[in-house]
Amino acid sequence: MTQPIYFFAKDKTEGNATMKELLGGKGANLAEMTNLGIPVPPGFTITTEQCAEYERLGGKLPEGLWDETERYLARLEDEMGMKFGAADNPLLVSVRSGAADSMPGMMDTILNLGLNDESVTGMATKAGNDRFAWDAYRRLVNMFGNVVMNIGHDAFEAAMRELKYETNKKEDTDLVTDELRELTRRYFAIFEQQAGRPFPQDPREQLKLSVEAVFKSWMNPRAIKYREINKITGLLGTAVNVQAMVFGNMGQTSGTGVCFTRDPSAGENVFYGEYLINAQGEDVVAGLRTPDPISRLESELPDCYAELVRYRDVLEKHYRDMQDIEFTIQEGRLFMLQTRSGKRTPPASVKIAVDMANEGLIDRETAVKRVKPEEISILMHPAFDPDAAKSTIAVGLPASPGAATGRVYFTADKAEEHHAKGEKVVLVRRETSPEDVGGMHVSEGILTAVGGMTSHAAIVARGMGKCCIVGCSQIDIADDHKSFKTESGASVREGDWISLDGTSGEVYAGEVSTIPPKLSGDFDAILAMADEFRTLKVRTNCDTPEDAKKAREFGAQGIGLCRTEHMFFGEDRIWAMREMILAENVDAREAALAKLLPFQRADFDGIFRAMDGLPVTIRLLDPPLHEFLPHEREAAKKMAEKLGVSVDDVITKVKLLSELNPMLGHRGCRLGVSHPEIYRMQSRAILEAAYDVKADGIDVLPEIMIPLVGTVTELEMLRDDTMAVYEELKAERGGPIDFLVGTMIEVPRAALTAREVAGAAQFFSFGTNDLTQMTYGFSRDDIGTFLPTYLEKDVLPEDPFASLDTTGVGRLVEMAATEGRAGNPSLKLGICGEHGGDPASIHFCAKVGLDYVSCSPFRVPVARLAAAHAALGVG
Amino acid sequence: MTQPIYFFAKDKTEGNATMKELLGGKGANLAEMTNLGIPVPPGFTITTEQCAEYERLGGKLPEGLWDETERYLARLEDEMGMKFGAADNPLLVSVRSGAADSMPGMMDTILNLGLNDESVTGMATKAGNDRFAWDAYRRLVNMFGNVVMNIGHDAFEAAMRELKYETNKKEDTDLVTDELRELTRRYFAIFEQQAGRPFPQDPREQLKLSVEAVFKSWMNPRAIKYREINKITGLLGTAVNVQAMVFGNMGQTSGTGVCFTRDPSAGENVFYGEYLINAQGEDVVAGLRTPDPISRLESELPDCYAELVRYRDVLEKHYRDMQDIEFTIQEGRLFMLQTRSGKRTPPASVKIAVDMANEGLIDRETAVKRVKPEEISILMHPAFDPDAAKSTIAVGLPASPGAATGRVYFTADKAEEHHAKGEKVVLVRRETSPEDVGGMHVSEGILTAVGGMTSHAAIVARGMGKCCIVGCSQIDIADDHKSFKTESGASVREGDWISLDGTSGEVYAGEVSTIPPKLSGDFDAILAMADEFRTLKVRTNCDTPEDAKKAREFGAQGIGLCRTEHMFFGEDRIWAMREMILAENVDAREAALAKLLPFQRADFDGIFRAMDGLPVTIRLLDPPLHEFLPHEREAAKKMAEKLGVSVDDVITKVKLLSELNPMLGHRGCRLGVSHPEIYRMQSRAILEAAYDVKADGIDVLPEIMIPLVGTVTELEMLRDDTMAVYEELKAERGGPIDFLVGTMIEVPRAALTAREVAGAAQFFSFGTNDLTQMTYGFSRDDIGTFLPTYLEKDVLPEDPFASLDTTGVGRLVEMAATEGRAGNPSLKLGICGEHGGDPASIHFCAKVGLDYVSCSPFRVPVARLAAAHAALGVG
Repeated sequence: MTQPIYFFAKDKTEGNATMKELLGGKGANLAEMTNLGIPVPPGFTITTEQCAEYERLGGKLPEGLWDETERYLARLEDEMGMKFGAADNPLLVSVRSGAADSMPGMMDTILNLGLNDESVTGMATKAGNDRFAWDAYRRLVNMFGNVVMNIGHDAFEAAMRELKYETNKKEDTDLVTDELRELTRRYFAIFEQQAGRPFPQDPREQLKLSVEAVFKSWMNPRAIKYREINKITGLLGTAVNVQAMVFGNMGQTSGTGVCFTRDPSAGENVFYGEYLINAQGEDVVAGLRTPDPISRLESELPDCYAELVRYRDVLEKHYRDMQDIEFTIQEGRLFMLQTRSGKRTPPASVKIAVDMANEGLIDRETAVKRVKPEEISILMHPAFDPDAAKSTIAVGLPASPGAATGRVYFTADKAEEHHAKGEKVVLVRRETSPEDVGGMHVSEGILTAVGGMTSHAAIVARGMGKCCIVGCSQIDIADDHKSFKTESGASVREGDWISLDGTSGEVYAGEVSTIPPKLSGDFDAILAMADEFRTLKVRTNCDTPEDAKKAREFGAQGIGLCRTEHMFFGEDRIWAMREMILAENVDAREAALAKLLPFQRADFDGIFRAMDGLPVTIRLLDPPLHEFLPHEREAAKKMAEKLGVSVDDVITKVKLLSELNPMLGHRGCRLGVSHPEIYRMQSRAILEAAYDVKADGIDVLPEIMIPLVGTVTELEMLRDDTMAVYEELKAERGGPIDFLVGTMIEVPRAALTAREVAGAAQFFSFGTNDLTQMTYGFSRDDIGTFLPTYLEKDVLPEDPFASLDTTGVGRLVEMAATEGRAGNPSLKLGICGEHGGDPASIHFCAKVGLDYVSCSPFRVPVARLAAAHAALGVG
Repeated sequence: MTQPIYFFAKDKTEGNATMKELLGGKGANLAEMTNLGIPVPPGFTITTEQCAEYERLGGKLPEGLWDETERYLARLEDEMGMKFGAADNPLLVSVRSGAADSMPGMMDTILNLGLNDESVTGMATKAGNDRFAWDAYRRLVNMFGNVVMNIGHDAFEAAMRELKYETNKKEDTDLVTDELRELTRRYFAIFEQQAGRPFPQDPREQLKLSVEAVFKSWMNPRAIKYREINKITGLLGTAVNVQAMVFGNMGQTSGTGVCFTRDPSAGENVFYGEYLINAQGEDVVAGLRTPDPISRLESELPDCYAELVRYRDVLEKHYRDMQDIEFTIQEGRLFMLQTRSGKRTPPASVKIAVDMANEGLIDRETAVKRVKPEEISILMHPAFDPDAAKSTIAVGLPASPGAATGRVYFTADKAEEHHAKGEKVVLVRRETSPEDVGGMHVSEGILTAVGGMTSHAAIVARGMGKCCIVGCSQIDIADDHKSFKTESGASVREGDWISLDGTSGEVYAGEVSTIPPKLSGDFDAILAMADEFRTLKVRTNCDTPEDAKKAREFGAQGIGLCRTEHMFFGEDRIWAMREMILAENVDAREAALAKLLPFQRADFDGIFRAMDGLPVTIRLLDPPLHEFLPHEREAAKKMAEKLGVSVDDVITKVKLLSELNPMLGHRGCRLGVSHPEIYRMQSRAILEAAYDVKADGIDVLPEIMIPLVGTVTELEMLRDDTMAVYEELKAERGGPIDFLVGTMIEVPRAALTAREVAGAAQFFSFGTNDLTQMTYGFSRDDIGTFLPTYLEKDVLPEDPFASLDTTGVGRLVEMAATEGRAGNPSLKLGICGEHGGDPASIHFCAKVGLDYVSCSPFRVPVARLAAAHAALGVG
């Protein structure tokens, strides 16, 4: 273990920015700023190792830590020339948590420590401002009571409201010194009643309890949940920053603010932020008063503004990233309280990365690493259809862009509950707090009545990439949390649909239809950079020429999965399909299939033309035949009439084909084995289309994929069938054509016998949807009854159908990849399950050496970036 | 390649019994007998390598083979002092096939080669018997036409019948020389008409064509099918034995017979067999004349009989096994034509093995190896209930013991067709031929109208362990193969039920109920010997004290799978179960479960007492809850009334619980996770019962098994639940108790993560039924639609639910066993899928190091023997 505490003060700083693990992000950056010569109130940081030790000891301060703290406190007193909590010229300190990864709103802050009945007078004397001192004191009692003693804010707020009512004051700031002294007295009473002890007058006791409270907050349920949602693991704990107080609330030349070195919403290279004159830092974030834009500071306090702009430049150049900075001005003197990489919206993330690369501030690799695949995903999200009828019922601050539509719920619990039932939900709150994070996570979007662009709701939603509107004062939420009314007269009840436009700040009544997003040049630029680094190819899963074109625009390098069954459902086709199913013998079946052949050929023709020059993997018929039959009597009757058979024949066939476990039934290549004429027709349609488009100069490479193979024999038999069709065609058409025959690996047995299977395959495409179903024994259709419980009880870390289970299912994929290549060194390997668009799964695919991933057209850009990250070893 | 041909003749023999692979069983044993000084007609054997080479060359004699054959033929002529096919004192030869494994009736034999229009006269002169010579000649034309030219027997038989009709003769033997000469002439015409060429007069051409015909017969469909059914693989081909003819049809001091050194039906140590005076060997096997029992030969030809009995003794002592021998007596001189290990019925197999061990002829290990597990299985087959009403409609020869009941079909094709539909079938034929083997295989039993105990039907049925009655002349099969009548006046039509008693030879009308078999002391003796060698323990799958007792009698060493769900279906219990399922909350659920607790405890109490001293593995609830609910409206109404709820509530619950793929649904430990109170109740019932019986002095070792685990977290959570129940009970009862908690490995993911899972398990039990379902993606309930096609097209070598797929599913088992032990060296490993009673699967279990197999009570003896075989490296 290293030294337990690190000091920071001009020329005496012990830490630096590289020590985030040990000092937390906040502590490391305070040290770094001090090293850069930027004015930071001095202080010290208790390391994360001490937090881990505190936890290991079951909630006891490690031996010697308090003595060491006293020693550092003495150094701080020396540095400041003040005594902690002294009656005369008292040193006050803040205590802030700070882990290695930023967790906004998760950890707790206490300001003004050191105030007591004596020092409040010394403070008043020194500041020459009684009101300020008592305001600071009542804030301490409130914050200390809340953070250390777990007393709800409500009680304190109620006392405040009551006092303002009694004195007929509107704003907190209207209260005068005596009133604040009275408020502090009432806070003491609340404190004593709820904590069961009086407010501690000993400053050292205040500090000790506060340090412990920060350590404890590391393991509180909200913090654990935040780390869980954000997949933050492997941290030791939080550091504790004890820092000399500076005050933004010492009058009109004091203030506090939060800024971003660039616009975190759109990404423009402009200075962006908010400040409040005569306020403490928490006032900006809490959203209780609406702050001014930072540009106004230039006219209000020009020197401070100029200095701040200089630091903006220094910090961004030093950290080579957009910074989120906090400052306080105490009586005209600027102090920097924090700098960290700023959270940003997805469009801002892309723009900043591209701009910084163009400015030469970062290299292209870094730019690519900076953008998260999920950000690209969010950019791909649909926006509202501009032509859709929209009824604007309110407008708020556009805190996080995007379009969200869902049913309204007013508490995080309700939102989670209804989300679990499969509803799309929108969380509507007066303001959000860390307790709401779970509810925010499951919501399509968040709407708050109060708070600014840097309020809790705004920051968290941007981090999550969720659409969010804040400070929407036009809405009035009923006390029973069951409805809200708007100034425009609209009334929205729990469960009603609303829609949020996070880019404009507009709230619409009802469910508004959406359209695909328009993507910026920066979007293309970052993906072009990503393409320079990735080795994994990205294909798409699609079944129509239109989707194929769209996917190509998004950068798809071929089709990884074209499902042919969708082609059997068209009005003209379904009847031929049903005729085929009802056929009593091979001849009748072939006659019906002959009707389907031209349709299929035309489908493939269109897709091949759209994918000129790129490979197209076509999966032969996969679903069980009963999926093509009607399941109700009326429909059966219609079918019987149409096909000239008896209703009984139809119903008998439906019964005959019905299965107890269709997932594990007569489908995929099992149909190919029992009814070889179906696959023969499909192979013929594919190859005829290929010959046709090739004659028109199209560069065509079909890859015929046989699904649900469990034994090499199935594959050999069906491959031979396809090759026989090809030999016929080759003779007819007078020449060869290039194509591959391969299989999906989706049955565990195929993965377990991959070496053999590979001997009969030119490619493997991992069908990880079915592979996950069979490896877990989970029916995707039925998992809804227990998956929520499984996630809630942490039996599963996440839905294995959303992100590939690398331990179990992934082991099969890895075995099959390795052994398949051993069996056939020229084997091509890809994935076409829905995991092909999931960044974590893409990393895994790269790791096990697949050649490509394939995903839905709208996931292609995400996959391109994720593939680059995999190649660059990110994540 | 070794020399192509091996000679055998007194003092000049080149081969011996160890050369079966090369000379075939017949050839090797002819050489061996000659070496033993037993009189065998001299000859030579063309090796199996030559057959393989013939096939490799696409059906051409290997270069130099014919020259070599000529050379050996010359040696044979020298040995015999005769010239092959000479006009004067001609040497005649037989040509017989003989592979390394005996394949009765599969390969073809030609006798009397060398006869032509000239040599027939020389033969007549030498024998002093014109009739004999012409009879031999007409037989040659018939056999040669049939075997070499594929001319059906029917044509020749029709000519024979016609001539007998014209001459008013009854038996073939009644025909005189001129008539036989005329018959031969008619045979020539048939031959020329059907073969498109005249009968070859050149003896060398006869021989060359015959050798090729034998080679070809190796690949004929019946031979391939026989090898397939009997799983004979890895053989090179068949050898060809060319041997000087001796004649059993040279009058009243000549004859031919087939014997067994012990009774192949009951296993008694008595000389057993049949012979015909004045007949050729084929006459006995063909069943055309009914032979005499061998004991009668003692009075008829006492010297020959004494010599034969001596050879019986020599051969059995030499081969240390029961021999099946063929002999011919030519004019009072005995020649041995064949010896081989005799096929025997299962009871005979057991008795002979035990007797020979007791006699000191073989050691105990050999005795154990001699008995096949399937023979034990057949002995376990039920016999007819002696108290059941039985109507005997006919009696035949009891050729193969057992009890069979099924629907009658008169052709092998019909039998196979109806068997494929799931019917139990009995094949009824005038006589059987190799073409019928497929139909025999699918039949419960076989009944023939003609033929003796060594007829084709009898031999093949015994080999298959199938009940068989032959020579039942009391039945008369209609020409249209649609019905038979019996002498007793009964009439049985196609599709009617009959029952066969293969032990008594009785044929009963209708379906006769069966009872469990009585097992002999030999049965116990051979299993006791098996127990000396096996290392794998054998447990049983059973759910009741009665079955547990039965299994213990059969030697079960514990219960490997006690399913608890069956205990919920009793009349008193199902209502509490349904109440539990309908319960709206945990309290109501627990109240319903409290009603089930005493029932479960009582069940376990009984089972523990029955298994005093042995471990009992109890699987917690496995099936999805909807299996306990009614699925029809009437039943739902009854349930609603009984439980005092609305019918709608019941129907809603049924709908809510219904699943698209119940196999992969909310069942097993998933129920345990979502409704922990169910498993808690079961754990309590198990542990309370254990405490109770322990108090009565019972040695109890429960093993609580958590089913369908896919992640170690599930297991940890549910194990902790069980341990919490135990901790409560330990406090209540004032002391500890021994028990284990483990899991079934039936979800592929559990096998893939076995190392982790083993950390939370004290034992693994492989649930290979579900593991096979998920590894193949086969629903056992739905596989019927495609499994027959898969077996027919050889996509699967066999039903993977009957015999463990060692390649795919087995790989998972092996991985899980190895990695599970690596994760937890004290892990106990067993198997409780139905494969636990399948000998091939048991071998696999031994190979991968499981501790035990578990199977149904009636398979326990089979498993004991199979386990011994596995330990002894058999098969």
